[in-house]
Amino acid sequence: MVQRGYGFIFVLLMFSLGLSAFFFIIFQYQMQEYEYISSKRIACFYSSKPEPHQFTILVRGIPVPPGWTCNEAVERFFMDLHPSAYLSHSVVRRSSKLQILVTDAERLYKRVTHLKHKDNSPQRHRRDGFLGLFGHKVDLLDHYEKTLGDIADNVRIEQSSLAGKEVPAAFVSFKSRFGAAIALNIQEGVNPTQWITEQAPEPHDVYWPFFSVTFIRRWISKLVAFVACNALTILFLIPVALVQGLTHLDQLETMFPSLKGMLRLAVVTQVITGYLPIQILQLFLSCVPAVMIMLSSLQGYISWSQIQKSACTKVLWFTIWNIFFANVLSGSALYRLNYFLEPKEFPRVLAEAVPAQASFFMAYVVTFGWTNIASELFQLIPLFYNYVNRIFGGECGEDFEAPSIPYHSEIPRILFFGLLGVTYFILAPLILPFLLVYFCWGYIIYRNQLLYVYVPKFETGGEFWPTVHNYTIFSLLLMHIIVIGIFGLKKLPIASGLTLPLPILTLLFNEYCQKRFFPIFKAFSAECLIKKDRDNQNNPNMSEFYDKLTNAYNDPALMPIKYTGRFRSHRSPLLSNSRCKTNNTESSSEDMLV
Amino acid sequence: MVQRGYGFIFVLLMFSLGLSAFFFIIFQYQMQEYEYISSKRIACFYSSKPEPHQFTILVRGIPVPPGWTCNEAVERFFMDLHPSAYLSHSVVRRSSKLQILVTDAERLYKRVTHLKHKDNSPQRHRRDGFLGLFGHKVDLLDHYEKTLGDIADNVRIEQSSLAGKEVPAAFVSFKSRFGAAIALNIQEGVNPTQWITEQAPEPHDVYWPFFSVTFIRRWISKLVAFVACNALTILFLIPVALVQGLTHLDQLETMFPSLKGMLRLAVVTQVITGYLPIQILQLFLSCVPAVMIMLSSLQGYISWSQIQKSACTKVLWFTIWNIFFANVLSGSALYRLNYFLEPKEFPRVLAEAVPAQASFFMAYVVTFGWTNIASELFQLIPLFYNYVNRIFGGECGEDFEAPSIPYHSEIPRILFFGLLGVTYFILAPLILPFLLVYFCWGYIIYRNQLLYVYVPKFETGGEFWPTVHNYTIFSLLLMHIIVIGIFGLKKLPIASGLTLPLPILTLLFNEYCQKRFFPIFKAFSAECLIKKDRDNQNNPNMSEFYDKLTNAYNDPALMPIKYTGRFRSHRSPLLSNSRCKTNNTESSSEDMLV
Repeated sequence: MVQRGYGFIFVLLMFSLGLSAFFFIIFQYQMQEYEYISSKRIACFYSSKPEPHQFTILVRGIPVPPGWTCNEAVERFFMDLHPSAYLSHSVVRRSSKLQILVTDAERLYKRVTHLKHKDNSPQRHRRDGFLGLFGHKVDLLDHYEKTLGDIADNVRIEQSSLAGKEVPAAFVSFKSRFGAAIALNIQEGVNPTQWITEQAPEPHDVYWPFFSVTFIRRWISKLVAFVACNALTILFLIPVALVQGLTHLDQLETMFPSLKGMLRLAVVTQVITGYLPIQILQLFLSCVPAVMIMLSSLQGYISWSQIQKSACTKVLWFTIWNIFFANVLSGSALYRLNYFLEPKEFPRVLAEAVPAQASFFMAYVVTFGWTNIASELFQLIPLFYNYVNRIFGGECGEDFEAPSIPYHSEIPRILFFGLLGVTYFILAPLILPFLLVYFCWGYIIYRNQLLYVYVPKFETGGEFWPTVHNYTIFSLLLMHIIVIGIFGLKKLPIASGLTLPLPILTLLFNEYCQKRFFPIFKAFSAECLIKKDRDNQNNPNMSEFYDKLTNAYNDPALMPIKYTGRFRSHRSPLLSNSRCKTNNTESSSEDMLV
Repeated sequence: MVQRGYGFIFVLLMFSLGLSAFFFIIFQYQMQEYEYISSKRIACFYSSKPEPHQFTILVRGIPVPPGWTCNEAVERFFMDLHPSAYLSHSVVRRSSKLQILVTDAERLYKRVTHLKHKDNSPQRHRRDGFLGLFGHKVDLLDHYEKTLGDIADNVRIEQSSLAGKEVPAAFVSFKSRFGAAIALNIQEGVNPTQWITEQAPEPHDVYWPFFSVTFIRRWISKLVAFVACNALTILFLIPVALVQGLTHLDQLETMFPSLKGMLRLAVVTQVITGYLPIQILQLFLSCVPAVMIMLSSLQGYISWSQIQKSACTKVLWFTIWNIFFANVLSGSALYRLNYFLEPKEFPRVLAEAVPAQASFFMAYVVTFGWTNIASELFQLIPLFYNYVNRIFGGECGEDFEAPSIPYHSEIPRILFFGLLGVTYFILAPLILPFLLVYFCWGYIIYRNQLLYVYVPKFETGGEFWPTVHNYTIFSLLLMHIIVIGIFGLKKLPIASGLTLPLPILTLLFNEYCQKRFFPIFKAFSAECLIKKDRDNQNNPNMSEFYDKLTNAYNDPALMPIKYTGRFRSHRSPLLSNSRCKTNNTESSSEDMLV
């Protein structure tokens, strides 16, 4: 008996030793990966050409003394504080109305050039009566060109009236990266709510509509976005619960007794329990990333990349809550949501519920994961959309824009399969081969897509990696909790106690990684910046680059429209007058519309 | 009936309106105060003379390439990155052994000068046998001088061997405050765990022992300090509970039936229930600040001011937990500590328990608060200590050092009475006059003490204010919770609902204050620094100041001992050889021992 006791303790010890060794291997691997990505990030910075966003910061909350313009205030302030480093600035203007006009003009211009290409095609003439069926025959090209001319006039009027609509924000450019970093990192004004500095995004990545709204509206929309995001995440459980109801055949039988005979058929059973729930779930889920992008753009980010990053985090938590927890707890404990408020009960509840859903998640990997990878390769939806557009929308195929990868929907999806792998690898190792197929296939396909299909809209600089790292740490913690819960359920307090240091170790490891690597992803060090600045000092192209930099952050809506000159305007030509009174707007349109 | 209902709702509305108005007045006042203190802080900075700590940063985690010394590594690195701003540096050395020797030497030197003053006093001779009673008569002065000479020799040997014991940390000084701020705020090295920068404390405020311990020992002692502090805070409840037991006469009677007669006497009852518990509590509590200082000094802070600030926060939470919560919950619910884990029950428990202890806290204010103020004025304990020291220790009264104010014990004490005022002003307004007397009296007495009695050891620069602000916000939140709990108990759900926005508003207000004012207390803005630098540029004394700055951060233990030269050494004179091979140690001792 004593011997059996010793044997048992020995097995337990070996098991926990093995588990710890396994985790140390994971830690080692995770750290190496973090190190690799951060070294890549620094290498990417070193090899980059001078980019406007490296030299520029965004300054908000500019206090404008009475009688001054914002423009003067910014120039005086930075000339005073950073006389040697300061280069130029462009004040942001409230241009939302203008942006709408410019977008209209661009769309019209596209259509006009399209029509010109297909000279005398049947599409060129349309009747001007009801539904384009009755009335006089009108030359569409003529009509469009006239409208374009009108819009251009409006744009000119709007642009000239915009000089007064200054927003107390400006993009300030410096002569060196280190100069910009100094202004960025040291609080500039005495009052911390004034002269707030922020790293500028790439010029084409700036989200201009954000600047047009007032402070109070921005504050309210931030609050609304926060509440809406949480409400969506939590209330989304309702359709998921409905879907989950479908997987329980016994419930369906009691609800619809007439279907009893049909539900006994093997095919029907398989479709209902295996396939249908996942398809409905997928339909709902496919709308979520778009909604999250919308909510994030309300939150006051100044660039598309930040909006996408924020939406990515939102979708991640949404996925964890609505796919993992809702599925795990709905089968056995949807109404036991109260357990979330009792941390002591949490491991037990999870240990009971998670293994019960193993088969569901295995089916999920196969139907959702595999098909997803396949549809990623074939790009069926864009293909279909493009085809429909060509036939009915009359768009020519030439101005087809290569898509950019939607990080905010792809990253959470891939990471979720990682979470499944980590949480189920002890409970249901059968899931692992399916996941292995998914990841191998995914690696090949995503590599192909990133290299040959998608065109990056902005340089991420590896900034999504910390999200991936945090998620992995979360997966590991969740797994620890489940293991502790299972040992608790099996009445093995020693084993449960032996696994208790694991979450603490994981948190310490995370703490270390955050200290060691995270700052690299937030900003570049003085050493990097100065080295790069010195590399550029002897570059003969720098003076040309500085000229470009001066105009890089002008609002595209304030640019002279390049195509208007060619069309008849009822009034005078646009190009000469449309400048704003910023000191930086004297630029050629070729520079700006890169 | 309906009219009565309307009347009731009207009263409720008026009450909650009044409460809100009251809180808005508090917010307004709190914000004004924060603004006032921050403006004072900036004014203090503007009016300050150039101080070494404004121009200096501490750099830790210096990576020393093989074959280099730390000294060379620092110089190369900063000469490379900040060639125009860098002035000098002093590498920190492992000097704990030397520090003990120097302290010994200083103590002996004091004794020797004391003996010389009282020439031929009976204290000058002592027998060298058992307990100083038998054996030869020895001239103590001679004996001490010899020992001092020996110690000085040891110091010299130790100092010369210290050149190799470099710690990878250095104080780096810059030519301007802004230069120091740049190096401080921008991560210097590519690896974030290397070249870690920190604001340097005032030279005499540096806590040198901290630098002597290795990284691992520091890490472990940090962990130990954290665990010990929490354990002390939580387990201190046991003596407090014992003390609280004394206030319940019925329990005493059942424990000691023989005392029944005595316990019925009015005087005894009053002493036991009113006076005794507080005195015992005070005895225990008086040791706490010293213990917290010890724990904080383990935590790896580099200056006494930081240690004191950290100890202040520790004592604050200790006080809240062990005086407020322990007393509130022990009377009625010491064993209901589990309620702390259930946030929903918390308001109800507090609402039941807090009013019950009103009389205890009223007595606390009078006995503890008032006597404390009085003893602060009379300084009875230092007086007694000084008297005893003079009689038995044989110390002369001339080298009496003026004390510095112990912020870490005084601030939590005063703030705690503020907490009592805020939480009890609705429940037991009778406490207010007592508190008013305390605060009025306290204002006069502390003002006097600060102006005429205490000598500041370091310039706080108002940095304790954020602690005070946070504590006030905590008091307000606690009060809201109690009010919500009381309305809940009285079955007034409307009133309870109406007070619910108050904590949210308080938190938002706190958020605003943190954004608006807190950065001012962390660092000075570029505007301030550059303005101050420009003021100093034309100052003719700056070159003299730079000379001083170069040597300001040398370890005092490495300084040549100024008095050794005068005494016979068995070997050669000390002063000429004792320099270390830092490039900054060539200083006169007068400069250093300010």
